Amino acid sequence: MKIAILGGTGSIGEGFALRWAEKHDITVCSREADKAVKAADEYRDMLLDMGLSCCGIGGCTNEAGIRGADVVVLSVPYNGVIQLLKNIMPYFNDQIVISLVVPMKKNDLYEFTPPKQGSAALEIQDVLPKTVKVVSAYHNVSAKKLANLELRLDYDVVVCGDDKDAKRTVMELTKEIKTLHPLDGGGLSSSYMIESLTPFLINLAIRNGFSDLGVKFV
Amino acid sequence: MKIAILGGTGSIGEGFALRWAEKHDITVCSREADKAVKAADEYRDMLLDMGLSCCGIGGCTNEAGIRGADVVVLSVPYNGVIQLLKNIMPYFNDQIVISLVVPMKKNDLYEFTPPKQGSAALEIQDVLPKTVKVVSAYHNVSAKKLANLELRLDYDVVVCGDDKDAKRTVMELTKEIKTLHPLDGGGLSSSYMIESLTPFLINLAIRNGFSDLGVKFV
Repeated sequence: MKIAILGGTGSIGEGFALRWAEKHDITVCSREADKAVKAADEYRDMLLDMGLSCCGIGGCTNEAGIRGADVVVLSVPYNGVIQLLKNIMPYFNDQIVISLVVPMKKNDLYEFTPPKQGSAALEIQDVLPKTVKVVSAYHNVSAKKLANLELRLDYDVVVCGDDKDAKRTVMELTKEIKTLHPLDGGGLSSSYMIESLTPFLINLAIRNGFSDLGVKFV
Repeated sequence: MKIAILGGTGSIGEGFALRWAEKHDITVCSREADKAVKAADEYRDMLLDMGLSCCGIGGCTNEAGIRGADVVVLSVPYNGVIQLLKNIMPYFNDQIVISLVVPMKKNDLYEFTPPKQGSAALEIQDVLPKTVKVVSAYHNVSAKKLANLELRLDYDVVVCGDDKDAKRTVMELTKEIKTLHPLDGGGLSSSYMIESLTPFLINLAIRNGFSDLGVKFV
């Protein structure tokens, strides 16, 4: 499967690239091709240094990455994501887009600040062509832990989406990351529930002296 | 400590009575004294049958239970809770009130339906005398698992409240239930975050074939 990671040079993007590179063809995407290529080279070296096989990691611009992708991972901040998508709109056709995007701001505490659609995922689906299948997932996965390949994760990942096949694909991709457990979170209209958990988890972590807090339903 | 459990004849009330009876003086409360006394007798017999010690469990009306209590557990449904509190208002003075109350309704899915204050806990604090200290907790503890004393629970319990001493008392009471882990959820204004998790957990459980789902932050 060809997976393009927008925000692929960032910390959570790095984790996905490293975790999925054994089985999938990964494209690290950035506005600047040079930066993307450099990051991809680093990730490849890290995998080879660890003696892990690597199906393929390359780097390119967002536009080029999306064009050939089956799955596009949106691991970018909320601020600017809509403008970014509008800029690269012509390159979308029927990809699965995984949104990790959480609209939040920090006052005294982190607060969920959804757009009028109710969630980032619904706003993103609104601006993309209807043929693109948006799936919402991975909001509460620690970037640091994801990028540490020696670590077996033990998180539940709630996956929301309206297209059943796309949701199933994302749940399968989730299972490939040891040991994330995908849970069916329902349609995209339920995405606000898992998006809003992120500021809540950050607040909990700050107050209770934890870091990199995820969630498990028991 | 004298703990009055409103809704003490219900399933979640039973769990608290059984779990706290070894160390505390428990009053099972109900609108009907007979029903409360009968439940209290049953709980005492259950504990004695299991060879567990019991500090004291009695049953009485809501009014009588509240009057002598240090802590009042509000384990009642959202519908009717405000009217119930208004009816028994004269018996409150400076108790700690633990709200487990979640405003939600079922359409296709369970939905969080907060009052204008933003959460049940804030609405409850609004109607009670200012000297009463409302603490919000235990929204996501399975009644069935809580009442099964052979089970070691493994949940995190987020505790929200504006009075630091009251919050600390509830966190200590939480630690006494093996092995619930209290987490400081901040002030009462954050209670909506943990209240709204309840319908989300119920929806997740239904969709993924689980029951009695709780939550753990990892």
